[in-house]
Amino acid sequence: MPTDAQEACFEAGIKFGTLYHQFAGTPVSPASSHSLETAMAEAIENQPHCAAVSVDILDEVLEETLAGQSADYTELTGRFMEVEMRIEYDGVTVHTRMEMDGDYPLMKLVSVDE
Amino acid sequence: MPTDAQEACFEAGIKFGTLYHQFAGTPVSPASSHSLETAMAEAIENQPHCAAVSVDILDEVLEETLAGQSADYTELTGRFMEVEMRIEYDGVTVHTRMEMDGDYPLMKLVSVDE
Amino acid sequence: MPTDAQEACFEAGIKFGTLYHQFAGTPVSPASSHSLETAMAEAIENQPHCAAVSVDILDEVLEETLAGQSADYTELTGRFMEVEMRIEYDGVTVHTRMEMDGDYPLMKLVSVDE
Amino acid sequence: MPTDAQEACFEAGIKFGTLYHQFAGTPVSPASSHSLETAMAEAIENQPHCAAVSVDILDEVLEETLAGQSADYTELTGRFMEVEMRIEYDGVTVHTRMEMDGDYPLMKLVSVDE
Repeated sequence: MPTDAQEACFEAGIKFGTLYHQFAGTPVSPASSHSLETAMAEAIENQPHCAAVSVDILDEVLEETLAGQSADYTELTGRFMEVEMRIEYDGVTVHTRMEMDGDYPLMKLVSVDE
Repeated sequence: MPTDAQEACFEAGIKFGTLYHQFAGTPVSPASSHSLETAMAEAIENQPHCAAVSVDILDEVLEETLAGQSADYTELTGRFMEVEMRIEYDGVTVHTRMEMDGDYPLMKLVSVDE
Repeated sequence: MPTDAQEACFEAGIKFGTLYHQFAGTPVSPASSHSLETAMAEAIENQPHCAAVSVDILDEVLEETLAGQSADYTELTGRFMEVEMRIEYDGVTVHTRMEMDGDYPLMKLVSVDE
Repeated sequence: MPTDAQEACFEAGIKFGTLYHQFAGTPVSPASSHSLETAMAEAIENQPHCAAVSVDILDEVLEETLAGQSADYTELTGRFMEVEMRIEYDGVTVHTRMEMDGDYPLMKLVSVDE
């Protein structure tokens, strides 16, 4: 039988995969980034065991990208955001974080506290 | 050569397909519906020729659905929203609307004005 | 520090959230279900630590749904599929499964073997 | 009232927005690109008035991208694919195409024949 801590980590992973793949590809610009941050966080907080989500869309990285291309918006992808989540599952608290690790948007377990 | 009005209608269709398939499946509840409405509208307004978007998530339909199921959220799909858009393309204005037509979320051209 | 087993469970969750929210909403019918099953499995197997994925789209459930509606296709959602995955992470093997639990598509940890 | 040709162009746009935003973000590599091409085409062909879809995922562009990064897969986006569609609506045939226009994945009306 999986332990409560393993279940909590599984739930944490589900939320991260959901957040990323539901919203990757969304048209985004500095003008629309704040409403998207809020909607992403509130959407994922609906899921079971998801106690808190914060999404930070990196406007300065967006602006650098827009400065080097023809269109004035782009598609949301991992290098434009940092995400933190707290999962609560049967007394276990899991903190997770996504940030760029070189060129890869790495989702990682920060801590698991029973 | 396609006419400007045909181009405008093509652009209008792109926006509708984008809006629906980017956001369908998003976890949603009455508590998160307003931030999602705003984010959807602002995301699509980034796209070229998209002058205005309004998204109305139907909280009463959401609540009916939640009352009949075990989870306290659901996935966004066509029967939970009404959408209107105005596209401006080289002097042509297109109004479009999505609403349920029986059991099908019908995206339709309301008017094309040159 | 999270354990290898906890990391493996986190990775397993990521794959499930990805699979579900990348493909939920895809237009599907019995005629297209097999190509979608294959594409979903192969797409997720690209992700790190994902050793095997099988996706079974339930044609009989699709057909029941189509029989009761006007359109001859629908949107992919949890009740139309069963999914199994095997994750391998630093010597830990995790088996996961998604199937309907009443009206909810439940993603669950089946086993965690170190 | 919109003309049949305008309706046909609107339908063509819907299919393009759907294809792009349903599948953008999918994990993809040369090993999985062929199943994804087939699934994308067959999924969109389910939609009304969609007579034919071809999707060409550009393995050579994928391989260039993979050669310059740490992970051995990437996320599907416009620069990795070329798409053609034929829409048939009440006697009107519309051909559409998506290909890169500089750095922007341009969806365009190729022809509208009544």
